[in-house]
Amino acid sequence: MLPESEIPTAWYNIQADMPNKPYPLLNPGTGEPLKAEDMFPIFCEECARQEVNTTDQYIPIPDEVREKLAFYRCTPLVRAYDLEKALDTPAHIYFKNESVSPVGSHKLNSALAQAYYAREEGTTNITTETGAGQWGAALSYAAKAFGLETAVYMVKISYEQKPYRRSIMQTFGATVTASPSMSTRAGKDIITKDPNNQGSLGTAISEALELARTTPHCKYVLGSVLNHVCLHQTVIGQEAEKQMEMAGEYPDIVIGCFGGGSNFSGIAFPFLKHNILDGKKTRFIAAEPASCPKLTKGVYLYDFGDVAGYTPLLGMYTLGHAFQPANIHAGGLRYHGAGSIISRLLKDGYIEAVDIDQLKSFAAASLFAKTEGIIPAPESSHAIAAAIDEALKCKESGEAKTILFNLSGHGLIDMSAYDKYLAGDLTGGGVSDEEIARTLKESGLDPSKAL
Amino acid sequence: MLPESEIPTAWYNIQADMPNKPYPLLNPGTGEPLKAEDMFPIFCEECARQEVNTTDQYIPIPDEVREKLAFYRCTPLVRAYDLEKALDTPAHIYFKNESVSPVGSHKLNSALAQAYYAREEGTTNITTETGAGQWGAALSYAAKAFGLETAVYMVKISYEQKPYRRSIMQTFGATVTASPSMSTRAGKDIITKDPNNQGSLGTAISEALELARTTPHCKYVLGSVLNHVCLHQTVIGQEAEKQMEMAGEYPDIVIGCFGGGSNFSGIAFPFLKHNILDGKKTRFIAAEPASCPKLTKGVYLYDFGDVAGYTPLLGMYTLGHAFQPANIHAGGLRYHGAGSIISRLLKDGYIEAVDIDQLKSFAAASLFAKTEGIIPAPESSHAIAAAIDEALKCKESGEAKTILFNLSGHGLIDMSAYDKYLAGDLTGGGVSDEEIARTLKESGLDPSKAL
Repeated sequence: MLPESEIPTAWYNIQADMPNKPYPLLNPGTGEPLKAEDMFPIFCEECARQEVNTTDQYIPIPDEVREKLAFYRCTPLVRAYDLEKALDTPAHIYFKNESVSPVGSHKLNSALAQAYYAREEGTTNITTETGAGQWGAALSYAAKAFGLETAVYMVKISYEQKPYRRSIMQTFGATVTASPSMSTRAGKDIITKDPNNQGSLGTAISEALELARTTPHCKYVLGSVLNHVCLHQTVIGQEAEKQMEMAGEYPDIVIGCFGGGSNFSGIAFPFLKHNILDGKKTRFIAAEPASCPKLTKGVYLYDFGDVAGYTPLLGMYTLGHAFQPANIHAGGLRYHGAGSIISRLLKDGYIEAVDIDQLKSFAAASLFAKTEGIIPAPESSHAIAAAIDEALKCKESGEAKTILFNLSGHGLIDMSAYDKYLAGDLTGGGVSDEEIARTLKESGLDPSKAL
Repeated sequence: MLPESEIPTAWYNIQADMPNKPYPLLNPGTGEPLKAEDMFPIFCEECARQEVNTTDQYIPIPDEVREKLAFYRCTPLVRAYDLEKALDTPAHIYFKNESVSPVGSHKLNSALAQAYYAREEGTTNITTETGAGQWGAALSYAAKAFGLETAVYMVKISYEQKPYRRSIMQTFGATVTASPSMSTRAGKDIITKDPNNQGSLGTAISEALELARTTPHCKYVLGSVLNHVCLHQTVIGQEAEKQMEMAGEYPDIVIGCFGGGSNFSGIAFPFLKHNILDGKKTRFIAAEPASCPKLTKGVYLYDFGDVAGYTPLLGMYTLGHAFQPANIHAGGLRYHGAGSIISRLLKDGYIEAVDIDQLKSFAAASLFAKTEGIIPAPESSHAIAAAIDEALKCKESGEAKTILFNLSGHGLIDMSAYDKYLAGDLTGGGVSDEEIARTLKESGLDPSKAL
């Protein structure tokens, strides 16, 4: 535990320290790199500036944001003694517990920052997409905290499977629409072709972007993927670094689950800084679902961030924006691409990736719940599974490595998934090379032109 | 925020300081007061000793229990600035946030203690009842943490309405049975008379007690009502006292929701000590549901704690053990009686009680969610409603009173109730004097013989 006075006063901007910078966002029409001003019509201006800031190593956290963060931060760093015992491993396993945020996940770290900037800049309405609903719930609360109205497009499969996350958003006062919907051109195009389309994050992003573009005083905000979102999450790793120091340890391995990159970046970047600048040799492992394996099986290409092609082009590991992920319960990880910074770091060998099948993630979650008393979010369970793998390797080798993973959220709203797991009704997931080749082609992408 | 080093080292035993002691438990056969030894066959021995301990002001918390408490304690004390602003009140409103425990409520404070004693005394199995499932979830985890097996009887209406709390218990490894069930004599008696009986805490207690009596190495544990449970919860108020001091304040009013007494006692007793010993004039308000109003409309009598009449007789405010509470969503408050200590304190004027109707509790919960970002448990919402009432009185009188309430848990597993509230499908609840007179009679109780 750290006192709230130890909440970081600035975000760590890894772009400043990267030997090779991430590929810039491109205007799909002209092929030119975007400047911050080009994004002002859609994004909060300060977020757009942070997005392209490759020079400032630290960016100050506004006082008012820090005050709201103090409501739940600093979050605890916990040594998972009982999990270690159950695994009979010499490894020391630590986790950063982001599930204690009032909305149950790390997502609030960026939601508060983005809602603050929106209000400061005179915006009255914000809109976004959400998968499983962790981001939507966080933003709905953050918007209310700063006096804004919110419209959330929620992936239809989650809207139906997880009605209670919808209720949470509505209780916070948000308008929630199942996506694809008939409220946007992008949604109508999909529904008229495929009335039973279950939606995806890529589709929901298209709808929210369209709403922002066509509504006065309305900005679009995003919960992952983009550089400024990863930036806002670095409070996690900065706190963890101090807490590990208090415990007299430094991690040999840092692990986060991986959807678009927000929680992984948050825990990893402040430690990764020391690999880049101080010659530390920590390993960083992104744990993605086997059914959406962009880091382990995707190609490094310029691609759209959404299904309709409304976003700028991002240089990223992608399965193609036409990729339709399987309906796994880790809804927050069902995204086809990986974010520019992470993609560059993966390409340059600073981070590694593993893919985890759904059954393995739930087995890890169950063991974690029994030993540590927290029901993890299906997303976070991927990080747990990867941590267990590493701890078991330590058991074989006899090494007492220090493993740190990010518990990005709790799974109390995901109990229907646990029910299905207990009943034996879940499958592992996974996607074939042929399927990936097909969706890349469908997305108009040529793997031979990888960056 | 307090560091974990400030977790109390002893529980505060208010029995030692009470001018009039609570009425002793009676053997229903002989009418004789029970000694600790009489309870050893059913309860953990140390818990039985604590139950009747009217002399030791403080009882040390075992180190191993304190270590497990450190996993989530000290819990935050939060000033509800945004709620104050929304109410436009000069009052200072603080809440102790017990919802940050890994199982989402204060219940873990006693579950860990009881599971510890069970293991220390060589018990391998424990059993209990649960209403909404907060206690069952806490005990399931605590049992696993100390290597015990757990069987939970869950009130049938909650088992069906809140399947996800059931899943949580099962994920922690517990056996969960809907009560009334065919697995006990008590359950069979009820089902054969009334096949559609929806259950109650009183019935579930009967079933768990029967299982404990008929199973070797199995003890019965309880999540509320009894003196030793209230004792274990005093970590809440002891921390809050230090935290209020850090904030430079002392509460004029302390509020907790009220089912059997565990969270109310936890927040109230350490402050009430100063009313008894130091002449402080703090008001203590127990907020109970209008549909189960034992403190405001019940009678102070000796009554059974369960439906089947398996328990000792308790001297308490009761609606009669035959009382069948309405199916309100605050399942944890659906209990007919009030606990011996609380009843004595109410009788002697140390505490007050108010009843809150269900619609009012959800209106308060919605305002709290929008302002403070936490979805409260339907139980805790009764405390919020009472706190809002007091804050609005301050607005009228212009007094800047300091109000402290206990947020006993979050409501993330209760979103179906919020859905119904948002849809206008909930009713207020309430119970007539005639109905209470009828159930007292049915329970064999004579109101004219009140203690």
